[in-house]
Amino acid sequence: MQNPKDYIDQHKDRFINELIELLKIPSVSADSAFAKATHQTASVVAESLRKAGCDCVEICETPGYPIVYADKIIDPELPTVLVYGHYDVQPPDPVELWDSPPFEPVVKKTELHPDGAIYARGACDDKGQMYMHVKAMEYMTANDQLPCNVKFMIEGEEEVGSENLAWYVERNQEKLANDVILISDTGMIANDIPSITTGLRGLSYVEVEVTGPNRDLHSGLYGGAVANPINVLAKMIASLHDENNHITVKGFYDKVEELSTAEREKMAEAPFSLENYKKALDIDAVYGEKGYTTNERNSIRPTLDVNGIWGGYTGEGAKTVIASKAYAKISMRLVPNQDWKEITELFKTHFESIAPAGVKVKVSPHHGGQGYVTPIDNIAYQAAEKAYEKTFGKSPIPQRSGGSIPIVALFEKELKSKTILMGFGLDSDAIHSPNEHFGIWNYLKGIETIPYFYEYFTEMS
Amino acid sequence: MQNPKDYIDQHKDRFINELIELLKIPSVSADSAFAKATHQTASVVAESLRKAGCDCVEICETPGYPIVYADKIIDPELPTVLVYGHYDVQPPDPVELWDSPPFEPVVKKTELHPDGAIYARGACDDKGQMYMHVKAMEYMTANDQLPCNVKFMIEGEEEVGSENLAWYVERNQEKLANDVILISDTGMIANDIPSITTGLRGLSYVEVEVTGPNRDLHSGLYGGAVANPINVLAKMIASLHDENNHITVKGFYDKVEELSTAEREKMAEAPFSLENYKKALDIDAVYGEKGYTTNERNSIRPTLDVNGIWGGYTGEGAKTVIASKAYAKISMRLVPNQDWKEITELFKTHFESIAPAGVKVKVSPHHGGQGYVTPIDNIAYQAAEKAYEKTFGKSPIPQRSGGSIPIVALFEKELKSKTILMGFGLDSDAIHSPNEHFGIWNYLKGIETIPYFYEYFTEMS
Repeated sequence: MQNPKDYIDQHKDRFINELIELLKIPSVSADSAFAKATHQTASVVAESLRKAGCDCVEICETPGYPIVYADKIIDPELPTVLVYGHYDVQPPDPVELWDSPPFEPVVKKTELHPDGAIYARGACDDKGQMYMHVKAMEYMTANDQLPCNVKFMIEGEEEVGSENLAWYVERNQEKLANDVILISDTGMIANDIPSITTGLRGLSYVEVEVTGPNRDLHSGLYGGAVANPINVLAKMIASLHDENNHITVKGFYDKVEELSTAEREKMAEAPFSLENYKKALDIDAVYGEKGYTTNERNSIRPTLDVNGIWGGYTGEGAKTVIASKAYAKISMRLVPNQDWKEITELFKTHFESIAPAGVKVKVSPHHGGQGYVTPIDNIAYQAAEKAYEKTFGKSPIPQRSGGSIPIVALFEKELKSKTILMGFGLDSDAIHSPNEHFGIWNYLKGIETIPYFYEYFTEMS
Repeated sequence: MQNPKDYIDQHKDRFINELIELLKIPSVSADSAFAKATHQTASVVAESLRKAGCDCVEICETPGYPIVYADKIIDPELPTVLVYGHYDVQPPDPVELWDSPPFEPVVKKTELHPDGAIYARGACDDKGQMYMHVKAMEYMTANDQLPCNVKFMIEGEEEVGSENLAWYVERNQEKLANDVILISDTGMIANDIPSITTGLRGLSYVEVEVTGPNRDLHSGLYGGAVANPINVLAKMIASLHDENNHITVKGFYDKVEELSTAEREKMAEAPFSLENYKKALDIDAVYGEKGYTTNERNSIRPTLDVNGIWGGYTGEGAKTVIASKAYAKISMRLVPNQDWKEITELFKTHFESIAPAGVKVKVSPHHGGQGYVTPIDNIAYQAAEKAYEKTFGKSPIPQRSGGSIPIVALFEKELKSKTILMGFGLDSDAIHSPNEHFGIWNYLKGIETIPYFYEYFTEMS
């Protein structure tokens, strides 16, 4: 195939500006206040796919936010790549920690991104990485370089559990039939150390509510005499990890896949500096499950973290009150073989069982998904590997990610095809955090690499 | 003295309406958003004291909210009563739990208040109880029944620690010279079981901040590998009580006054139904320090309660984030002999010492105050006792309260006089809670009882 570089150089300003326009729309799926913008984003994505050369473009309604479907079938005999991505983004909170407004993208040069990075919510996760595929498609159709059939499925509920995508996939197996699923919603180790994500953690996300007295109480008149829901919630959360930071939920580890020493040794070869890691986060020590390294803790081991907690008086000054209720949002990252629905049940049973007399506890499951592992011996992985070698000049490292894309396991189950996770972001891109950004070099490198995957995958099929 | 009843009956509608007008002004001292209203409340209180017959009325500026001072000196040879109260109120949060807006007072009849109760923030604490003294003053001056000298000192920062009242008292000892201090900012057991508060707990109120990574992190990429400030804060809070609900802060109990068995037996005589207590709060069990009864836990024992906690994502839906920071507001109720400044230091030292590697901890003292005990063998207490006997037809029970009026200990130190706590509210009045209210019967009963205290105290002096 002709080198995409010239076309990219010629059009890169437009590629960047189109992405910036897309990032201006606050498609926060978790918060219904952004419903209008989220719907609008679907239309913008659909239009961009039409312009990129797709023949059939649909906005498919679901019980939630619509799914944008598009395809270009050049020859039923040729293999078909299904591209998945999402147009929704995480909430921008805490907004006050952003250096620039989350939905007013700015380009800034940084040490890691000398060519500049685009700062905005969704810049990397996943609007930026999803849009690489749209622009790669444009390149291939505009230059008659498309070697196979392509289908796009871009959803708007990834950040809230993809419930309706599952609903959609189950109902459209024929339409979505493909030979491989291609996703850019993960990262790589560094710009000079390309890597391909071969594993994802599963997820179970729950919200808990602890109710004590039927109303807020004066802490002087009742303090010490009734169960304080906040103190109780703190005790319950504290008890979820033991002194070795093992999770105490009964049965939690029963199905956890234990890696062999060989596998762990291979993992340990990936370049990693604990000093730089601590420096980047400004922490004096790491923290986690005894017996595992940092990279193991955040990839091959399951975890339990409180993502949010609230209760009582949180305003300015002081209020001497015992709250009637306290709440927490808790998520568990799961590893292959742990079933998220089973873990959610185990958590619910355990958490309810540790509630002391004097309080009532409610556990509400939010959403979840299974973990996933990509075998590196199939042609799809090898095609991706070759594409990276072509554009990065070196072979990518297979890497387990700690993140979750719950839908991937479902794709394999429903569509019977493997998923390749070609991520071009960096851990330092601050996805899900204030000042999320995406390197322009990474954005363009993705657009350059993707067409080669199509070429090699078609050749090898 | 002539019975105040007739005058009260004649003017009670006006007495109620004047209080309702006062309650409409949102004088929330904890929140600077209410600064204007809080200042306005001071002027309204000053005006009401002028109308009640005080000769000299001043609004005394302080570094914070002003103190309203007023007096009527009829004869320097006669004893002087100093009335203390506060015109500021607690924040109304959580506003959504109020049945009617906190600053739009409504009168409703209830089982406990067949004559109706006024529902509004501050109805009981302390605008309602403070205003009883203004109306009692009006009665005495309008009917030539004032037997002694009176001074009023009404502050606007009681709910945030009375810092500037201390500042004011230290600078105005001559002006505030008195023979007894009279306060209605406590409760009584029941309308048919009058009681006088003879003890108050001290208070130490702090805010803690736990900082982990320097930014919010993706819980998938970092979960399990770095200290999560919310999990850590929960563990730290949980460790502040042991399995017997003793507070683990080193040295916390060193100076705690231990009551004799005889004293505890006398306390136990006060009418109390644990069943009704649990029923009123809709809890299946009480909770607290091992070895003490509910009434001991909330009066003669020190306590530690989290009054507010927050961190991470607390909005709608789910966000898979590890917060950079987590916060809690923590207050400790102290008993006589515990010095609040010393306890605050002990807490700070202890809390910082239990922080694990990987986080930074900051403890910021908010405010505090010493506990206090009134001897029941002095004439002031006896005058109060006689006044209750006159208007309630039965002798009041001396009762230790779990609440705190930090300034009372300071009054004794600076002004060398004892304080009598004549409270007419009920525990069920929900002070500091949504739907705070004050019984109209209690309001009028207070106005009726107070003049008798003046009479008896003057006679006995």
